[in-house]
Parts: sequence; C-alpha cells; structure tokens
Amino acid sequence: ITGFACLLIAVKLNGFACKNPAWVQANDFSFSGLHNPGNTGNPFGSAVTPVTVAQIPGLNTLGISMVRIDYAPWGVVSPHYHPRATEILTVIEGSLEVGFITSNPDNRLISKILQKGDVYVFPIGLVHFQRNIGHMNAVAISGLSSQNPGVSTIANVVFGSKPDISTDILAKAFQVDKNIVQQIQWRF
Amino acid sequence: ITGFACLLIAVKLNGFACKNPAWVQANDFSFSGLHNPGNTGNPFGSAVTPVTVAQIPGLNTLGISMVRIDYAPWGVVSPHYHPRATEILTVIEGSLEVGFITSNPDNRLISKILQKGDVYVFPIGLVHFQRNIGHMNAVAISGLSSQNPGVSTIANVVFGSKPDISTDILAKAFQVDKNIVQQIQWRF
Amino acid sequence: ITGFACLLIAVKLNGFACKNPAWVQANDFSFSGLHNPGNTGNPFGSAVTPVTVAQIPGLNTLGISMVRIDYAPWGVVSPHYHPRATEILTVIEGSLEVGFITSNPDNRLISKILQKGDVYVFPIGLVHFQRNIGHMNAVAISGLSSQNPGVSTIANVVFGSKPDISTDILAKAFQVDKNIVQQIQWRF
Amino acid sequence: ITGFACLLIAVKLNGFACKNPAWVQANDFSFSGLHNPGNTGNPFGSAVTPVTVAQIPGLNTLGISMVRIDYAPWGVVSPHYHPRATEILTVIEGSLEVGFITSNPDNRLISKILQKGDVYVFPIGLVHFQRNIGHMNAVAISGLSSQNPGVSTIANVVFGSKPDISTDILAKAFQVDKNIVQQIQWRF
Amino acid sequence: ITGFACLLIAVKLNGFACKNPAWVQANDFSFSGLHNPGNTGNPFGSAVTPVTVAQIPGLNTLGISMVRIDYAPWGVVSPHYHPRATEILTVIEGSLEVGFITSNPDNRLISKILQKGDVYVFPIGLVHFQRNIGHMNAVAISGLSSQNPGVSTIANVVFGSKPDISTDILAKAFQVDKNIVQQIQWRF
Amino acid sequence: ITGFACLLIAVKLNGFACKNPAWVQANDFSFSGLHNPGNTGNPFGSAVTPVTVAQIPGLNTLGISMVRIDYAPWGVVSPHYHPRATEILTVIEGSLEVGFITSNPDNRLISKILQKGDVYVFPIGLVHFQRNIGHMNAVAISGLSSQNPGVSTIANVVFGSKPDISTDILAKAFQVDKNIVQQIQWRF
Repeated sequence: ITGFACLLIAVKLNGFACKNPAWVQANDFSFSGLHNPGNTGNPFGSAVTPVTVAQIPGLNTLGISMVRIDYAPWGVVSPHYHPRATEILTVIEGSLEVGFITSNPDNRLISKILQKGDVYVFPIGLVHFQRNIGHMNAVAISGLSSQNPGVSTIANVVFGSKPDISTDILAKAFQVDKNIVQQIQWRF
Repeated sequence: ITGFACLLIAVKLNGFACKNPAWVQANDFSFSGLHNPGNTGNPFGSAVTPVTVAQIPGLNTLGISMVRIDYAPWGVVSPHYHPRATEILTVIEGSLEVGFITSNPDNRLISKILQKGDVYVFPIGLVHFQRNIGHMNAVAISGLSSQNPGVSTIANVVFGSKPDISTDILAKAFQVDKNIVQQIQWRF
Repeated sequence: ITGFACLLIAVKLNGFACKNPAWVQANDFSFSGLHNPGNTGNPFGSAVTPVTVAQIPGLNTLGISMVRIDYAPWGVVSPHYHPRATEILTVIEGSLEVGFITSNPDNRLISKILQKGDVYVFPIGLVHFQRNIGHMNAVAISGLSSQNPGVSTIANVVFGSKPDISTDILAKAFQVDKNIVQQIQWRF
Repeated sequence: ITGFACLLIAVKLNGFACKNPAWVQANDFSFSGLHNPGNTGNPFGSAVTPVTVAQIPGLNTLGISMVRIDYAPWGVVSPHYHPRATEILTVIEGSLEVGFITSNPDNRLISKILQKGDVYVFPIGLVHFQRNIGHMNAVAISGLSSQNPGVSTIANVVFGSKPDISTDILAKAFQVDKNIVQQIQWRF
Repeated sequence: ITGFACLLIAVKLNGFACKNPAWVQANDFSFSGLHNPGNTGNPFGSAVTPVTVAQIPGLNTLGISMVRIDYAPWGVVSPHYHPRATEILTVIEGSLEVGFITSNPDNRLISKILQKGDVYVFPIGLVHFQRNIGHMNAVAISGLSSQNPGVSTIANVVFGSKPDISTDILAKAFQVDKNIVQQIQWRF
Repeated sequence: ITGFACLLIAVKLNGFACKNPAWVQANDFSFSGLHNPGNTGNPFGSAVTPVTVAQIPGLNTLGISMVRIDYAPWGVVSPHYHPRATEILTVIEGSLEVGFITSNPDNRLISKILQKGDVYVFPIGLVHFQRNIGHMNAVAISGLSSQNPGVSTIANVVFGSKPDISTDILAKAFQVDKNIVQQIQWRF
C-alpha cells in the first residue's frame, strides 16, 4: 500500500498514509501559474483554469479544489452543473451577471449582478452560469467542495453527446422541429 | 424532540428516535396505488408517480425511494438528472430506449434498448432519458438512492426558468440565433 | 488506476473514473431476466432474485440495488435484516402480510396487509419478514439503499452457523431445553 | 438554535455550536460509577451498564460510546447485534467465550476464548454473543462506534415482539412445530 | 419545517428545502467587500476576513467557505488548524513562506516559498502557518472544505485558554520552567 | 480483490468482502496484552498502548479503536488532539485531572477531576490532556471513534518538527524572545 496511486485513492478513506510519510513533499501539495489569464479566444469568450486533483495529487480525498475563470467582454460561462461540488466564487476584476436555477417544480432563477469583491454561491448539483457584463476583461476565483467536482455543460451533454441523442427524442423534449435540434447538434 | 417534524429531520442522523417509538405506526411507512397507471395525456406522452418522503414520511433519512413511470406509445421522459440519487429501473411492460450521458470532456451517450424484465442504471448526477419504442403502453418501476432524489429537467431548467435566463446568454451558450432561443422559451 | 477492479472500488469515492471512460459500456450497467419467476419449490415457499453489484458491476459505489421476490401460496420470506440497506417494496401481484420489529427495549412489531400496488418500507438494520396470505402466487419488487445490502437470516445465523454456536449458549439465550435447540440446529 | 435540544441534534452536523459555547460545562461530557458491578441476578447471568448519549448528552453526534458488562459464572450475553456500531471489547477480569456470525450465505462463526487483557472486535451489524467460561465473575469494557449504537436482541425481537409475530410464520421460518414456537414466545 | 433557522440546519441533510423555495433569494447566497484589505495593525501583522455560513446563511450544509488573508511585511498567521476543513490557498499579491506539520510520529514540516499565482494545500486537521517574506503587503484567497471550518490557534488554545491550563502541566508538557510558561500565558 | 491489502482498504467502503470470507479468522479481529502496564519511565511519566488498525487489521473501516493509558504519580499526557476521532475515557485506577479546550474565539477550558469509574469525553479535533493527581499509578481505558485516530502532540508538532519551524515565526506566534523558542525547540 505505498506509492503514488495509493496516495490518490486512500489517504482519507481509512486514515492510512498510503504514500510513506517520509516521501510526501511540498510538490505533492502545490501548483503554480494561477495569476496567468486563460485564453478567451473562443466562441464563448471565457476560459477556466482548474486546480483539482488532476493538477495537485495531494488534494485527493481532501474535498476541495480551486479554479480561475477569465471572461472577455460579454464572455459567457455556459449553463452547466457540478455533480459533486458547491462553488463559491469571488470577483477579482470586472462585473458579472451570475445565476443558478432551482430544481423541479419551481425552476426559479436566483441571479445577481456582482462587482469586484462580491461573493456568490452555486449550490451542488444546480445548473448555473456567468456572463461578463462590462467592456473590460473580468476575472473570478472559485473554491469548489470536491477535489474532483466534475462538470456537465448542458449544451455539450444534450446536443453534443457521442453518439448523438436521437433527434426525435430531443425534438419532443424541447418541443421544437427536428431541424432546429439538428441545427444545434451540428454546432456541438 | 418529539412529533412529526422531528421524524422528518433527525431519525437517522443521530440514531435517536425523535418520534416516540410508541407512536410510530404502519401508516408512517406505507403507500397505496402504485398499480394505477399515470396519465400520459401530455405533450411528452409520459407520467411519473413518485413514492418519496413526500408520500411516506417514515422514509426520511432512510436513503431510498421508488417511482412508477408510464409511457404512451413513443412517449418520452425528457432529459433530466437527479442531483441526489442513482436510479435503477426495470421494465414491467413494453420496450424502452434508455441512455445517460457522461460528464465533460467525453460526453459519451451510454444507451440500450430494454425489453420486459431488463434492468438499467442511471448513475447519480448524470443526464438521462427514456423513450417507449413500441406501439403499446410501457411501464417501468425504479428505485432511487435517496428519500428525496430531486429532479432537474433540462428543458425546464434552461428554457423555462422563472424568470427566464437572458436570451443573449442562451444564444451564445447554444450557438444559435436569439429567435430560436425565444421559440423554445415560449414552450416552457 | 484503470480497468475493472478499479471500477469496482473507487468510482464514487474519489470521483475519479477508474475505468477509462472510453471503455465503459451499456453492459456494465444492465441486467436481463427480472420478469422470470424464481423457483419457490423449497421449504419456505419463496425465492429472491437479486440485482446487486454482483450482477451489475457498474452499480458499485452507487448506493442502490433491486430484487424480485416470488412467493408460493402461503410462502414466507423468513425473518432477516439487511445490515447496510433500507428496503422499499411494492406488490406486483397478490397479497402479503409484512412487518418489521423495532430494536430494544420496545421490540414493537409494525405490520400491515398489503394488496397489489401497495408500498412498504423496512428501515435499515431492522428484522423484517413477508408472507403470502393468498391462494395464488405473489410477486414483489424492492429497491434497496446499497449496491451490496447484505442479508442476515435469523434462523441461519443463530441456528445454522458453521460451526454451530454452543447449544448451552442458545439454550440459555432462548430459555429452552437443549434438545429443542438441537432440534432446530439439525434443520439448518 | 440554542439550548439543550439543539446540543442533542446539530453540533456536528453543521459544525455550529447550538448550545451557546459559554454554557457548555464539564457535566455535559461526564458520567460516574462505571466501576460498580451491574446486577447479574437474572436468567441470563449478565448485566450491561451503558454510557451512551442517553447518559452523556455531550456525546451527541460524536460517534462513540462505552459499556461495562458483568457476567456471573457461566453468564451469557445473548445473541444480538448493534445496527449502528462496531464494538471493541477488552476483558478486565475473567475468561470469556465470544463470537460473531457472518451474514448470508456463509454464516461463519468466528469465535475465540479470551483471557484478561485480550481484545476482540464485533463488526457493525453482525450477530454476536459472549459467555463467561469461568467459575468467577467476569468483567469487560467495550467501546462502540456510535453515540447511540442500538441493540436488537434476537430472542426478544423474534419471539418477544409486541404484538407477537404469527406463530405460523415463525414455525415455517425455524422449521419447527408451532407448539415449540409458542413455548419460546411464552418466555419473552 | 419553514423559515430561516431551518435553512441553517437541514437543507442538505434530507434534501428538503426547509426555507420555502419561493422565499429563497440571491441575498441568501451572496456577500460583498472581499476586495477590501483587512486591518493588519496587530502584533502578528495579519488579518483574516472570513466568508462562512456566519456571513452567508445559504452556505449551510454546502461544505465550502472562503477567506481573504492580508499580511503586513513579515506578518505571520500563527500556527493553527481547522478541525473540519482542508484549505487551498492562492497568492494574489506578494510572497509567502507556508508550511504544515504531519501528525505523530513523524512531525514532518512540509513547507514552500510561494509567489504570486502559486497554490498550496493545508490538509484537514494539520497544524499550518504562513509568513509574508517580502517588504510589501501580501494577499491570499483560500477556499475551505466546510461551511464552518473552525479554527484552533495553538498559542491561544494552549497558553490563552479561559481558565488557564495548570502551569505545572504545561511546564512538563513543553519541558521548560514554570516561569517561562507563565511568561507566555501572560501574553494570551 | 483478495487478500490482506484488500481487507485493509475496502471492506466497509463498498460492502464487499475483499478478503475471501472463507479466509477471515478470529486472529484478524483480536489482540492480547492490554492488561500489561506501559512503561512510564520517561520525562512525561505516562505511556499509551494503542489497539488500532495497526494492531488489529480487521478493524479497518470499522470506525473504532481502543487505548490503555498508564500514568506514574503526577505523570502527564501532554496537550494533543486526534484529527479523526472523539475519545471516551474511563478511569480504571487512580485519580486524574483532565480537560479539553474549545476552538476560537472562546478557547474555554472544560476540565474535571476524575475518580475511579468516572467517564469523560474529548470531542473530535479539540486539544486535550490528562494528569495523574495522586501518589499512586493511575490507569485509564479509552475508546476512540476511528480505527486510525491519529495524534498531533502540540509540543512535538510546533517545537519538534523536522525540520524546525523558523524561530522567527514561533517567536512572533507565541510573542516571546527567540531564545525562549530555541530553548523549547532543543528539548524536542
């Protein structure tokens, strides 16, 4: 029960140090470069830089991760949810419109305009989004309550799965013509 | 620490029987009528009859619930996810096409055609759907791993929230014209 | 961290997909044949067909399983408990007498006669039983709140262990003559 | 969210001190008298002195409790299980035969003779028992992994429930004549 | 099961919205002012601005919080631990020396010099500290894996408790003269 | 998934018996010698004999362990905390002064003089200590709510880490001269 794979699996689960404590080092718990802006040159005008267990092996089982989010002017982080984490976001630079939607049957949109220094919470498992509402770049830092929060982006999951969901099913689900469904599927 | 509200909150949490054990009775743990078909006369051609903590108070904290699902011919249970539960479904009558989609970055559709007596699993937090692929009514029974699994139906959450998500945001998220977004929003 | 054994151990624990997501397939999440009656030709007149992680590997860590139970006329599912799961049962065909017993010091029997479409809950860790009270076969479907609920059948555990519990101990525990204890032990 | 009831419910759950920290005192976390022998003058020749959340309110949510067990010569702690706790027992005085039985399908009895200073583990949810195998009194101290471990004593649950389980059901379950079932039921 | 106190206790526990979903609003999930420096004019030269469930009621049960930490030149955040949370810290401005110490028997110091954009992890329950090693102010933002992480600052707990721990005990524990213990106790 | 390593990792996690049930034996669940006094011939005058997963492999995942503590006259168990366990202690012989300190901002010392047969609770993650206040040896038995509770002894963690924490940092943290810090560091 020693070595790196073990560090990834079991430290907290049974309280046993799988990696020999004499071998743990600072590099197992650190990461560099979160001050660097991500590349927002994409159709959505946003970029996410994750710092999760994939970047810091020592995070495993510790129930926390961090991300930096960059937004070009009017850039959008598309509706998505994290199946395993709540997100707490603070605005470092700029202004953001943010919101989450409660589950059935209410489907209430709980949204707010955030300024620099504002903090907002996206509860675990609820669809949420952000948009830069200024003419300057915006930056946010978030904490997430899992070392591996997961992301399901709605557009990609529903219209961009591999293989596609039957056009028939999506046409009935969204109550539109099949050709509109296909038009969206072509983009993803 | 007595009475009904306590039964709902705390029984398992601290192992204390909140409702005086002398007052618990069979009706706190039972429900009737799951043999009755639900009404599928709606645009989706499907109906869900839940048996959760809202129907059986004694389920609270016990981590399980059940649903019956009825499908008219070609009826669809629209893409949705349960933030707090895995679902295990068995087909009682008819044939169903079912599937779930994995989270980013793969977004793989894992689907199958089910016949009577087949069982399928929809893992917690993943978007999934079902469609009756026969000319007869179909019926399924599912177990869910929470007394209150929750449901977020994608079409309702994204295009039917109250208030609406900005058309601008959805147009950019789904990479379509605003008028298509509005067309879908009108239906929900 | 890849391959089948990993799928069995770790998927939910650390949120890491152990089995490469590109290798997961529908067969990892499905099972067939739950419409087939079990063989009730035994002294108890009942049969249980389980669908747990032993039948569906993809269920691992997902916290749910399902069983079909068949009862010959007057058939009994003998008093037992599941150390890791609550059970929610619905009657598909026939009529059942069901009950569970609360722990010390009350030991209350909470029981009910169930008809087709009725639902009943057996809370985690409590001894429970069912009996077909009609002249026809009966069928039930249950969901259980663990992928591996476990079963301890009282008669088998207490009178049928390998090796036997000392007759002296059981005679004192049940306050009967040793020859009665031995008579029951011979059956199990 | 203040006062005693709150202390009982919520301290660990959300990490909030419900009872005002200024009011907590040593008496909320202590108990006296565990050096006193229990009264073993009963048909089983044993006595259990519990120190759980019922005796120490401050134990709530803390996941631990303790018991002292006294055994007259040849005294028995009858087969029982704790639905919410593993037990770790050490012999303070005397010699004990102890064992637990694994669940279906193996039902293996894992037993041992313990001397003073020996330690044994009874895993959560498994039926177990102890017997004094000496001519002197014996004493044991156990820790249990719940502030409210619960106890289901098999004889009481199966043959002493209120109301009784039908004699028919028990006769079939234990494969004996009804009059033997009734003979045991009369004792409990 | 309605109202604010309920929001604080139970939302995630049983998945029930205690506060009527129609009453939840953005203000239950937001906070302002995290861009404002804390006051470092104290003997330690540091200041912590918390954003926990005490500041954002909607965080309750969601398992995450955030803090801003300001450091005057050479300012220190004194050795402390969080009994309920892992901390992930990123440097927004300046340079920090940071470290945590593993538990017995190794007591290894795992430390590093951090620059702007560096990230470091302090695992749950381990003593850790930070020091500004530059001539300018420094700023960090941390995520913590609990809505109410708790803090035990070693100097305050050991030398500043109310009432004091006996000087005798501390002199033996730290293997120093009583007058040195008293000298430290006077400061706290 | 078989053999000893598996027993250590996974038994409770997924409810699967990793070690083949046919191979489990009583020795996996037992330990001998807890009646033997530990060696208190050290500067603290105390000795701890642990019975955790390191001594009993079968304890893994079962959430409980036990320790025996011996105290020479006036012997001290130095301030420490268990990051993963609450401790419940009973005095077998002698008289002890015991206490724990609550976290910030109150740092209240909750202490008591215990006699033979008294029981006291040290909540998870809080610093605590014991001292023999009699002229005879004292003995205590404790249960702990983890199979691997962990120990961080304050003096060792803060003044005896390898390598040392900078004297500058500790001098500022404890508000004393560097030479006092060094004096304590030399002892550990």
